[in-house]
Amino acid sequence: MSFDSTIHAKAVDLSKLSYEMTAAAGSGHPTTAASLAHLVSVLMYQHMRYEPSNPLHPSADRLVLSEGHAVPIVYAACADIGIAIGTDRDHWRPMTREDAMTLRAIDSVVDGHPNPVEGFPFFDTATGSLGQGLSHAAGIAAAAKVDGLDRRIFCIIGDGESREGQIWEAIDFIKDHQLASVLPIFNCNVYAQSDKVSPQQTAETTAKKLEAAGYEALVIDGHNPTAIQEALSQHAQSQHDPNAAPIAIVAKTQKGWGSPSQQGAGHHGKPADGDDMTKALEELDATGRQLGASADTTLKIGLISPKKPDQPTVNDPLSFPQACEKFGQSLDKGKLATRRAYGIALRALGHQRSNVIALDADVSNSTFAEMFFKDEALADRYFECRIAEQNMFSVAAGLSAAGKIPYCSTFAKFVNRGYDQIEMAFNSGANFKIVGSHAGISLAADGPSQMSLPDIAWFRSFATMNAKNGAPGFFVLQPSDAYQAYALTLAMAEHAGPCYMRTLRPDTEFLYSENDTFQLGGHEVLEQGRDLLIVASGYMVHEANKALEQLDKQGIDAALVDLYSIPFDEEAILDLANENNGMILTVEDNYGAGFGSAVADAVAADGGGFTVRQMHVRNLPKSGRTPDEVLNYCGLSAGHIVKEAMSMLQLSGA
Amino acid sequence: MSFDSTIHAKAVDLSKLSYEMTAAAGSGHPTTAASLAHLVSVLMYQHMRYEPSNPLHPSADRLVLSEGHAVPIVYAACADIGIAIGTDRDHWRPMTREDAMTLRAIDSVVDGHPNPVEGFPFFDTATGSLGQGLSHAAGIAAAAKVDGLDRRIFCIIGDGESREGQIWEAIDFIKDHQLASVLPIFNCNVYAQSDKVSPQQTAETTAKKLEAAGYEALVIDGHNPTAIQEALSQHAQSQHDPNAAPIAIVAKTQKGWGSPSQQGAGHHGKPADGDDMTKALEELDATGRQLGASADTTLKIGLISPKKPDQPTVNDPLSFPQACEKFGQSLDKGKLATRRAYGIALRALGHQRSNVIALDADVSNSTFAEMFFKDEALADRYFECRIAEQNMFSVAAGLSAAGKIPYCSTFAKFVNRGYDQIEMAFNSGANFKIVGSHAGISLAADGPSQMSLPDIAWFRSFATMNAKNGAPGFFVLQPSDAYQAYALTLAMAEHAGPCYMRTLRPDTEFLYSENDTFQLGGHEVLEQGRDLLIVASGYMVHEANKALEQLDKQGIDAALVDLYSIPFDEEAILDLANENNGMILTVEDNYGAGFGSAVADAVAADGGGFTVRQMHVRNLPKSGRTPDEVLNYCGLSAGHIVKEAMSMLQLSGA
Repeated sequence: MSFDSTIHAKAVDLSKLSYEMTAAAGSGHPTTAASLAHLVSVLMYQHMRYEPSNPLHPSADRLVLSEGHAVPIVYAACADIGIAIGTDRDHWRPMTREDAMTLRAIDSVVDGHPNPVEGFPFFDTATGSLGQGLSHAAGIAAAAKVDGLDRRIFCIIGDGESREGQIWEAIDFIKDHQLASVLPIFNCNVYAQSDKVSPQQTAETTAKKLEAAGYEALVIDGHNPTAIQEALSQHAQSQHDPNAAPIAIVAKTQKGWGSPSQQGAGHHGKPADGDDMTKALEELDATGRQLGASADTTLKIGLISPKKPDQPTVNDPLSFPQACEKFGQSLDKGKLATRRAYGIALRALGHQRSNVIALDADVSNSTFAEMFFKDEALADRYFECRIAEQNMFSVAAGLSAAGKIPYCSTFAKFVNRGYDQIEMAFNSGANFKIVGSHAGISLAADGPSQMSLPDIAWFRSFATMNAKNGAPGFFVLQPSDAYQAYALTLAMAEHAGPCYMRTLRPDTEFLYSENDTFQLGGHEVLEQGRDLLIVASGYMVHEANKALEQLDKQGIDAALVDLYSIPFDEEAILDLANENNGMILTVEDNYGAGFGSAVADAVAADGGGFTVRQMHVRNLPKSGRTPDEVLNYCGLSAGHIVKEAMSMLQLSGA
Repeated sequence: MSFDSTIHAKAVDLSKLSYEMTAAAGSGHPTTAASLAHLVSVLMYQHMRYEPSNPLHPSADRLVLSEGHAVPIVYAACADIGIAIGTDRDHWRPMTREDAMTLRAIDSVVDGHPNPVEGFPFFDTATGSLGQGLSHAAGIAAAAKVDGLDRRIFCIIGDGESREGQIWEAIDFIKDHQLASVLPIFNCNVYAQSDKVSPQQTAETTAKKLEAAGYEALVIDGHNPTAIQEALSQHAQSQHDPNAAPIAIVAKTQKGWGSPSQQGAGHHGKPADGDDMTKALEELDATGRQLGASADTTLKIGLISPKKPDQPTVNDPLSFPQACEKFGQSLDKGKLATRRAYGIALRALGHQRSNVIALDADVSNSTFAEMFFKDEALADRYFECRIAEQNMFSVAAGLSAAGKIPYCSTFAKFVNRGYDQIEMAFNSGANFKIVGSHAGISLAADGPSQMSLPDIAWFRSFATMNAKNGAPGFFVLQPSDAYQAYALTLAMAEHAGPCYMRTLRPDTEFLYSENDTFQLGGHEVLEQGRDLLIVASGYMVHEANKALEQLDKQGIDAALVDLYSIPFDEEAILDLANENNGMILTVEDNYGAGFGSAVADAVAADGGGFTVRQMHVRNLPKSGRTPDEVLNYCGLSAGHIVKEAMSMLQLSGA
């Protein structure tokens, strides 16, 4: 029993430190932490293969703590082991118990929830918004599969948390793609925040659900070291057997393990302090003595495989016409849907960069992501996510953590489904690209359930702040023609950070050629003018172009900018406004707070007295059989633009 | 077999019409429709109890088509039966086959996906973004349970769609709350859009998953009328037995049923036309003949229960002090968290309005929604949703469709999880209220995984457009003190439309009294000034107040507006700016594109040369032990406001 005794001693020690650090912080979740004391001890001291001095070793096993609020127990182990921490990789140092006591302080790397970007490289991803970690783990495993690396990814999931549907999306995804290197560990400690978990989330029901999904569920006592070790060993053996069912552990644990005074309802997120803490610590010691806790065995962290993945290769890019020729696509019609240009670009990019991965959610024949996986040379870098968008974006966070550049596509409307997951990936510092097709109202016939309308506002919000590396939080891209869409798809890969690009359902006329260059943050002046500056984006550039002709007949000399990026060069836009009577008319086919509002921000900050009138969708759209019908219904046709421009100039006395 | 013959005849007829209407529209999903031909025929012609002339009868059975793209088959039945349609209830008329042929036309009520707000009252909710309908059905059932109505809610779910985790959240929710009047019907037609469904979504695996979740899964041939009828009858009987497991139907069907040339991959969303359509129709006729299709039995729609729910009662509201006294809450400290004021208000509202329902996602002791259900008189109007936010918001859509006013609360960050569901509820015309607690960065210690930062931008986007009833799409509310939070919670119930209110974790000082009144669209001038207008919201009003004192010492006379609503009276804000040197400094504790940007929109539209400088969160926050630490980290302390104000005035030469 010496292994057991030693693990019990660790469990007591780490639990005590969890109480102490949360008391110091004045907040946190020590009782959840204590429920994981044995699982984390066996994993981190005995079973996982990793280098404490280099948690980011690319073939090290990884731990994803999906129930992020349990993090004090992992911090305690990291402090005890001396796992490297620090914001600057060149100056990593071993974590100490003193570091643990800085939990949640403003100048500490020991954040309230797992947060790799603050200097905690033991974690790949930010967790804490529940239900996402298993998808992160699946992404890390998917990258390892592509790279042929033997690494295991352990993911701890709370029982209450397993109510989140995304957990079950990830369970299906792991099975579909045979990512048996992921080991889901359900921590069934019975209590959620406000109450006991539902009967639907008990250990027994969870095991049944896993078995229904084709898993072998190992139900164990999560405070029995030998049982934990045996279950982990079973996974180690079975993960390479393609005929074996994937394994999941369902661990029955106790919230507030070891401290009876901290058990039961009412202790979630409320660290004991003062006499209560003294009592909790004394109880833990007593529990340890009762279990014969004693550090009489030397534990050692597993040996790591020295294998590293190949460095990604980067070849010269193809031009759009070159890619079209190579892939048998025609440019002869003079028009092409930007979503189709995306498919061509994604395929070209797959050949250009070996670390680009494509994902889609059952609409690859609409987004044209299918062009990627139908190319045999790229097929094993594609992961079909089926109709489960939340999982897709969190898988991307995992892929990025493992050095890949994931491109995720679905309808722009359904991107909405994963905003929380996208934000957590962003918080993780992930380098991922999102491509939402059928954007705006020009998809027409399918109606508003398929139209992305508040999406620009949401992504733009991230463009108003800077990520850790100083770059804009997000680049929001909205190409108007196929050349632009192709170029921006490639440009996104050059930028180490998140991007959102919208593509369109209908064919749009070519506005550009292979000689035009486009970049994140750019815009294109399509027409110089004198009376009025029209700023349009995506499909609306074409409507604005039509409006320009009509305005010209009225003797109005309007300039036109294709604003295909947020953020953009505000000064350049204001200069153009200056040349155009100070009058700006913005046109976009989504709800407001988007492109027009970004221009308004710049104008209002400048204080120079420019006027911005915004045209955007102001009513709930409906189905129409053609884009023109819906544009007209929403007051966004070329005719409406002309009318608005005229009204604006008349109002200003021009 | 005469029942079977008649249903087969209907199935052929409705399938044919589905092909014809999608061909006329030039888009749509006839093969998915045909897979449901028998299920919809038995349901709508034989089993459901409803009045074709009044689909909104409050005790009628309801059909929720979660896989919204299958809608042509329901339209075909509605046209055949003559179910009432029309945007104006006073002028409803029976739907005709000619109406069906207007599918997806801009002036038609027959939208591309189920869309009640366009004049199709047979549907309660907008569907089409997949995975949400079962939660809608659960909401309708929850309302029926509260009202003591015997109505059944049938929900058809696609097999590919059942990959969405939300479906399984709803499955758990229905079991938890014993909403056995909901009958989930899984339409397992094998093919999704881009490919066959995953082995994880076959009929067999789906049945196992349902059984693991505690359901009795009836696996049937979905083209066998008698088998369908028997399964529906079994549900009719068992639903009232509290000891019976809830029932779900898993129907094995064929995509493109009846037309071999339309079966297999590649037909999703691609209506046949020309010769292909002729062939598909001929094949359907041949299939009908083979099955002995013949309308030899008269089908009749079930008799409806005449029972209607009681009219909701509305009592006089209590003032905040009255409510506090009644519920034993103290106002003596001179400060109170707005989230606690929400709890008090919600409880008062429960007594004031009998149709208010409360929902929360396992954080009711943080949001203080627990004050509602801990009141025995209100407990049965509370639905605990556990950690499954997506389901919660879609349940709210169902509750609203059944005449309730649902208040949904969770952390503002986790509201993010349900944006797609919220948008679909909005598209459904739902009257629901969302309350996000722990908003912004003042929750501090938990770190960015719990902080809502792009939320104002997203909800504000809906405030830039108008809902069908002409009201702003959303009201976005951000109270700064407890009196305001109390008043706005009550005010939201008076407005028939969606609202989003943010509440704060820390206590905030009282700024108001019971004599102050607040309304959606309002703002409060806290200080008149001359040099500069500071516009702040929520927690930042208190920081701005502190800044005012310091500015005063510098001889700067700044005005302060508590902008607690978007939209707001733009003219009034511009007038104030006019009195203050044309200088506006906005302060909010979220990412940009929010309150400040709304002010910038107004200023830029005015063109009067005002200057707007925006202070908002511009870096990724992290944990800090106090709000002050995090405000400082994000450059949003009172000191930072002072500095920005000074810089602004110096820049302007003041």
